[in-house]
Amino acid sequence: MDAKFDIKQYMTQLGVQARKASRELMRATTNQKNSALLAIADAIESSKSRLLSENQKDLDAGAKKGLDAALLDRLALDDDRISSMAEGIRQIVALSDPIGEITDLKYMPSGIQVGQMRVPLGVIGIIYESRPNVTIDAAALCLKSSNAAILRGGSEAAYSNQSLAACIAEGLKAARLPVASIQVVETTDRQAVGELITMPDYVDVIVPRGGKGLIERVSADASVPVIKHLHGVCHVYIDGAADLDKAIKVAFNAKTQRYGTCNTMETLLVDKTIAADVLPKLASMYQKEGVEIRGCAQTQAIVKGINAVSDEDWDTEYLAPILSIKILDGIDEAMDHIHRHSSAHTEAIVTEDLTKARRFITEVDSSSVMVNASTRFADGFEYGLGAEIGISTDKIHARGPVGLNGLTSQKYIVFGDGHIRG
Amino acid sequence: MDAKFDIKQYMTQLGVQARKASRELMRATTNQKNSALLAIADAIESSKSRLLSENQKDLDAGAKKGLDAALLDRLALDDDRISSMAEGIRQIVALSDPIGEITDLKYMPSGIQVGQMRVPLGVIGIIYESRPNVTIDAAALCLKSSNAAILRGGSEAAYSNQSLAACIAEGLKAARLPVASIQVVETTDRQAVGELITMPDYVDVIVPRGGKGLIERVSADASVPVIKHLHGVCHVYIDGAADLDKAIKVAFNAKTQRYGTCNTMETLLVDKTIAADVLPKLASMYQKEGVEIRGCAQTQAIVKGINAVSDEDWDTEYLAPILSIKILDGIDEAMDHIHRHSSAHTEAIVTEDLTKARRFITEVDSSSVMVNASTRFADGFEYGLGAEIGISTDKIHARGPVGLNGLTSQKYIVFGDGHIRG
Repeated sequence: MDAKFDIKQYMTQLGVQARKASRELMRATTNQKNSALLAIADAIESSKSRLLSENQKDLDAGAKKGLDAALLDRLALDDDRISSMAEGIRQIVALSDPIGEITDLKYMPSGIQVGQMRVPLGVIGIIYESRPNVTIDAAALCLKSSNAAILRGGSEAAYSNQSLAACIAEGLKAARLPVASIQVVETTDRQAVGELITMPDYVDVIVPRGGKGLIERVSADASVPVIKHLHGVCHVYIDGAADLDKAIKVAFNAKTQRYGTCNTMETLLVDKTIAADVLPKLASMYQKEGVEIRGCAQTQAIVKGINAVSDEDWDTEYLAPILSIKILDGIDEAMDHIHRHSSAHTEAIVTEDLTKARRFITEVDSSSVMVNASTRFADGFEYGLGAEIGISTDKIHARGPVGLNGLTSQKYIVFGDGHIRG
Repeated sequence: MDAKFDIKQYMTQLGVQARKASRELMRATTNQKNSALLAIADAIESSKSRLLSENQKDLDAGAKKGLDAALLDRLALDDDRISSMAEGIRQIVALSDPIGEITDLKYMPSGIQVGQMRVPLGVIGIIYESRPNVTIDAAALCLKSSNAAILRGGSEAAYSNQSLAACIAEGLKAARLPVASIQVVETTDRQAVGELITMPDYVDVIVPRGGKGLIERVSADASVPVIKHLHGVCHVYIDGAADLDKAIKVAFNAKTQRYGTCNTMETLLVDKTIAADVLPKLASMYQKEGVEIRGCAQTQAIVKGINAVSDEDWDTEYLAPILSIKILDGIDEAMDHIHRHSSAHTEAIVTEDLTKARRFITEVDSSSVMVNASTRFADGFEYGLGAEIGISTDKIHARGPVGLNGLTSQKYIVFGDGHIRG
């Protein structure tokens, strides 16, 4: 770009265009939005070879820069991932339009009728790192929920994101919706992020997706509300009353099904009464898979030759084939450990005991709490949301996987017939 | 208090106690919470004379300090307002307990069962100004929703708030719930606010209630999420297709029923085709009531002897018997004015035209949008929420009157039978 390129001016222009588009989107019909989405999905599938070659440019540059395996995995596109982006869009088309939905419309004693109507947030700014599929998930979720979006992906995915942006623009044009409904920031200059998060006149909410560092930086500097998606230090607790087979299946899957995702288990908690039964077999499965185990003293006594866990480990999101294991005394100690070290993302208990399952569900304060299921299920696809824009570890607004409803708000509507307050 | 009183230490202590109480409240039964609430209501009614005499101390001090009429009105207690505080608590007792409610529990294609469970936010910090009833509304709403609360009222209501705090403590003790569930900050030192909004380990959300200045200060400095309750610059638009009687009733009530509240109309918009029919009668009613009218040039031509409106007026929350009036050309100009000048609190249209009513409801982006009803209805009591902790003009999380549900979040719960992700 031109050396004289003014980033503040450029971002303001995106903001003005997004605000204007958002007002047009308020009036867009469900049909129009769905037509645009289907056209985007078609454009993605018919652009497969271009998407792959542009993605390869990003992968080559990433390898040259020395990005680690987890990051390169997040960055990579292949036939399956491209198909699943298009499939994700079609799932969103199939969802009912949340906008305009009126709920709980009831007469009050005064005679007025009060209800709530679901409405878009307006303009959403999304800041993310390496995964190019975020560009498509975010665009589709924002569009279906009648929000305009300004997307700012990581510089390491710049080629992939711009090639996806072209597919999005094609779909919007086909449905005669403003192309500015979804804008992908073209500059990779970091100043663009600083501008995006301080334009309250043009941006209603910021959704940062990525490492803890990015999110903390954005939260500290933003002058608009931020829906935070912090890291995942997820736990599985194998209770003394667990079924051994289920415990092994769930704990193995939660760690090894994919390493680079935020819903991957990082710490395994095991009740001391079952540890000797479950850990030897489980540990050898992990080790065959190449997972490094770091254990507490009691774990080291059962699983020979593993490293000792450090205090820091309990708070670490490895995003890698590393697992810390702690043996402890029952559900209270387990919930206490979780309360102190969890990032409040996703925790699971494996047990056949109803009362313990009920306590875990009630007392563990995380965005997803599971019984006898792998933490890897914690995402928008698996929860039937169609896709997700991220997994919120905030307590206010959206919590857990954020799908369509997380990108809307509800206003009150009141109908009277000349009613006044007495 | 002691000159050596350490406010940071004091607030940290309140925080530690609140966090501990919040974990006990997670296990409190509905019966326990309701018993505490009923005991608080009884304590308030049996303490009427003490409450009035303590309130009188605040009123005397306020008058001496020269507080204006609107502020003194907000501060004052009388028999009716005390009864209505107790009544408000009993209404909250009658509401169903939102905590633990599980919704949308459904099987997914993978075989897991996914639903959402309503849970408390944890510890809520509430910062407010003169109205002592906020102490009771906030305490009751937080308790019913299983949240611990730290309440920081204005120094001008210090006597009233401490006498109410005694009633709250009495009720909590009677139901054997931790007295630290609801703590009213005793020091009036401003540093206490600074500490309260920067204790993320002990406070989950801050709800500031009061003037724009307070809320902007709190939002700028807080390191925890803030549910904002900004000012109310509310509009009534009298459409050309309005019924004259309804228009006059609604517009008169919206301005004059009470001046010091955020849902009071501050600007009246009138379609030019109906202005000459509606304004002379309405203006004379306002003037009889002592309302100063500030009009645009066209309004001045119809209502003689009024002052000219200034550009600033359009953005001003008067909280006083002052009204600005603008005559304009139809619903598009009205919505455009609202979009530029409203604080997104509450707007109303008066019309008999269905299509215009639908457009207004859909396109006006405020927390409450009304048809043929007074803006004064925008509050938690009138909406059947039992009470409100404030009226949110935020778009994320709670919007409009914030009752019980606004003080909760929903986590995802998942049930499996050893399910793993493939």
